[in-house]
Amino acid sequence: MKHFHFTKIDEKKVEAFGSTETTIRVFINEDEAPNFIMRRFEIKPLGQIGVHSHDWEHEIFILNGNVVLINEKGDRELVSSGEFVFIQPNEPHGYKNEGNETVAFICMVPKQEK
Amino acid sequence: MKHFHFTKIDEKKVEAFGSTETTIRVFINEDEAPNFIMRRFEIKPLGQIGVHSHDWEHEIFILNGNVVLINEKGDRELVSSGEFVFIQPNEPHGYKNEGNETVAFICMVPKQEK
Repeated sequence: MKHFHFTKIDEKKVEAFGSTETTIRVFINEDEAPNFIMRRFEIKPLGQIGVHSHDWEHEIFILNGNVVLINEKGDRELVSSGEFVFIQPNEPHGYKNEGNETVAFICMVPKQEK
Repeated sequence: MKHFHFTKIDEKKVEAFGSTETTIRVFINEDEAPNFIMRRFEIKPLGQIGVHSHDWEHEIFILNGNVVLINEKGDRELVSSGEFVFIQPNEPHGYKNEGNETVAFICMVPKQEK
């Protein structure tokens, strides 16, 4: 059994997809994870992860704050702390923090598709 | 894209392994989840999930409270809100809430092994 406070895990900037003010921490490395990878993201106020898509799903749990999810058409949905989110394979998605507090969420992906 | 506040998801009692004061909510059903299942557990003060093991892993994030993780020898480790936990396949594990507040955590499992 392994456990770490999330603050003990290296925090890296996310810059793909025109992302700003966003960091990722990846829990357990891919050699150790048999099937899926747990990551924790933070998006500071006014930060974003640009719209993108891929052929694997996301399963997300919002830990803190409110985040606007955006698709390729610009449709917007506000999701908040305590919500689960499921993004299907190949579904375009981006994230914007238009609030005053840092958004934090857990986002799981299958191992082969980090 | 699908999103729900966790309180909108059916909460079911967990009674396996001599568990007490414990509930589970399963996010998205197994037909929809391509690879893994996200569940949210709550264990009330003095509640527990008895020690057990299985040949699949757990990846956990503690949302609230402090929980004692116990193995088959009775070894104990306290894990707290903000911690990630990785339990390897076939590693015996149980959970006890010896604190005053409800423990809540996300626990992911591969799909074929709900």
